[in-house]
Amino acid sequence: MSASSPLPVSGAWRPGDAPGRRRFCDLGDLLLESGITLPEVRLAYETWGELAPDASNAVLVLHALTGDSHVRGPAEDGHPTAGWWDHLVGPGLPIDTDRWFVIAPNVLGGCQGSTGPASDAPDGRRWGSRFPHVSVRDQVEAELALAQRLGIDGWALVIGGSMGGMRALEWAVGHPDRVDRLAVIASGAAASADQIAWSSAQAAAIRSCDGFAGGDYYDAPDGRGPQKGLGVARRIAHTTYRTAEELADRFDNRRRAEPDGRYEVSSYLDHHADKLIRRFDANSYLVLTAAMDGHDVGRDRGGIAAALARVTARTLVVGVDTDRLFPLSMSERIAEGIDDARFHVIHSVFGHDGFLVDSPALADWIRDLLGGRSGRQSARVVAVSAAAGCSDPARRQEHADAHSAELKRSP
Amino acid sequence: MSASSPLPVSGAWRPGDAPGRRRFCDLGDLLLESGITLPEVRLAYETWGELAPDASNAVLVLHALTGDSHVRGPAEDGHPTAGWWDHLVGPGLPIDTDRWFVIAPNVLGGCQGSTGPASDAPDGRRWGSRFPHVSVRDQVEAELALAQRLGIDGWALVIGGSMGGMRALEWAVGHPDRVDRLAVIASGAAASADQIAWSSAQAAAIRSCDGFAGGDYYDAPDGRGPQKGLGVARRIAHTTYRTAEELADRFDNRRRAEPDGRYEVSSYLDHHADKLIRRFDANSYLVLTAAMDGHDVGRDRGGIAAALARVTARTLVVGVDTDRLFPLSMSERIAEGIDDARFHVIHSVFGHDGFLVDSPALADWIRDLLGGRSGRQSARVVAVSAAAGCSDPARRQEHADAHSAELKRSP
Repeated sequence: MSASSPLPVSGAWRPGDAPGRRRFCDLGDLLLESGITLPEVRLAYETWGELAPDASNAVLVLHALTGDSHVRGPAEDGHPTAGWWDHLVGPGLPIDTDRWFVIAPNVLGGCQGSTGPASDAPDGRRWGSRFPHVSVRDQVEAELALAQRLGIDGWALVIGGSMGGMRALEWAVGHPDRVDRLAVIASGAAASADQIAWSSAQAAAIRSCDGFAGGDYYDAPDGRGPQKGLGVARRIAHTTYRTAEELADRFDNRRRAEPDGRYEVSSYLDHHADKLIRRFDANSYLVLTAAMDGHDVGRDRGGIAAALARVTARTLVVGVDTDRLFPLSMSERIAEGIDDARFHVIHSVFGHDGFLVDSPALADWIRDLLGGRSGRQSARVVAVSAAAGCSDPARRQEHADAHSAELKRSP
Repeated sequence: MSASSPLPVSGAWRPGDAPGRRRFCDLGDLLLESGITLPEVRLAYETWGELAPDASNAVLVLHALTGDSHVRGPAEDGHPTAGWWDHLVGPGLPIDTDRWFVIAPNVLGGCQGSTGPASDAPDGRRWGSRFPHVSVRDQVEAELALAQRLGIDGWALVIGGSMGGMRALEWAVGHPDRVDRLAVIASGAAASADQIAWSSAQAAAIRSCDGFAGGDYYDAPDGRGPQKGLGVARRIAHTTYRTAEELADRFDNRRRAEPDGRYEVSSYLDHHADKLIRRFDANSYLVLTAAMDGHDVGRDRGGIAAALARVTARTLVVGVDTDRLFPLSMSERIAEGIDDARFHVIHSVFGHDGFLVDSPALADWIRDLLGGRSGRQSARVVAVSAAAGCSDPARRQEHADAHSAELKRSP
């Protein structure tokens, strides 16, 4: 899948030609949990609002598996999707960018500008199959390095849903003194056997694709990659993101009349598969799902209960009542383990994807969480100084598209 | 996938070299629901017990997607699996072969001896991609033709689970005068959008496999076929057959120590995928899942309620409380629509696969159903006469393996 591929899926852009409003920060080497050092790590990120002089108003928003830094704004100018939390982040919205400085990094291992398997390794060739396993903790460490480069010593709030919730929780467990408030939405403290099972089928679909070529498909002369396998993975994943009831209401067992008589639900899944393979790198999909499979805040910390007991943040835990991928019990377990936690349930027909849907209740819970304390209470206020290699973080947010009530279907 | 393939998956054997205890019946042409005529149709089947002179004691047992005619008996001599209802069918068992003549055909479109895509077409080449769509109703019509060749005008009981339950229900709706008793277990009156969604991902996995070759892979010189895609399909399907709770109890997020550190649940799914690709034909998998997707007893009959109202059989409907593929509501809907129906729930940790597990309750319900009337009450008793081209159906059942309490995992 070269740059001229008909299906461009890699976001391993250089800072000079960064599409959209992404910025980049070079972090140098990153020592991974595995003991391997990943060299020349870069994170892409976007920001909204202004960082306060004492850096006390920084909010970290963490995206889900196929999401990216584009939390708000239109799908244009190199941003493959519209903002996935347009209704939660912005002026006057629950995460009010007139008050808070919001930063959303692309995850380490992803494909929207942060270092991942589609990036060039130091030898000038794509990482491909050589890209090492990264854990959720490694991803958090990269985000910590980014924060430090931007002069942010701690967060007024770390918030994320699904895979983003895994990172958010890891932040609060691994660095409790850096997280004042925490919001974990439709996520879990550790991957479940069921989640790993679904992930296994998806990984098998990608790896068994002839175009995968062991992960080194970037230089295939015809731009051929494991798109078909990634499409199968997406069909599986998307079905786990929704509910049987919603699919029944929308599609039942109806067929399209023309031209091919496909079932409406099959056509719907084909559409989502087709969309993803045009914007996402299959190797990143494997790297990120492997990180999710390995997510376990209790690992090497005496178990989940002991890990959750480390959290000092004022915490909001939210589950979706119909979520069949991250069932409510996973959210309850987090809430029960954290001292200062409130637990709320979104009632939704959408299942796991309910966390992406505009929900007045979720908006209220986030407002409450942020209203409870004004700014960061820590004494560890540091000077604002954009470190070498990083863009100025305090770029003013441009008013983006009007709030979209349409459901974004890609968590 | 030629006969010398390392992964023999086709059961398109000739009667002369039929492995195992299968028999075969040539049915001639079959006019399909689509209007297409499928020529030279043959069904493989097994029987246990003796047909009464008035043919009043015939029981039809219908297998699930990857099952076959081997309802009881060991996995040997050409039978790829042990009997899937060893605990329900046999002397002294709920379907008592000392009293009942039990016949289990392999489904039309399958790959264990009945005509399917791996069979030779009249031109001597494999059907492959040319095999037409067959519906559940077509499968029932083939079974009706088989019954008529064997001198069986009606059934004391038609029973099946999952896909077998779809055919059983179609029998009772389409031929109410030929079905005295009906048992539909873990099945539905029509495919749901959710089922079609899972099926779509599985079909995409097979069709996108390079080895699939559009469905004409049988003569690939290296025996290469869409085994990888079929394996992905099995991983998806198997996960839908179980429950998150059972997987959590068995595997949690543990990894195997050696040699590869795979997650235990991944290894488990790999194992089931590997088993299936060694015994099942990918084209059959597509043909049968397409039949299941199209299952709707209400089609062209004024809807499901009108169709169910046709059923005159004394009916047992059983659902599994944890079934996430055929949720309990699907069973309830059947029971509510049939005049003389009893509805029972299996409490099981196994989800959909619960219908294959030895259940004292299920055994009792089937005994009750069969005890309620002695033999077939119809006046339409016909003479027993094995028609031309068919084996003698009244072969004595050989005592098979001892009842196995082990869960069979392949519905």
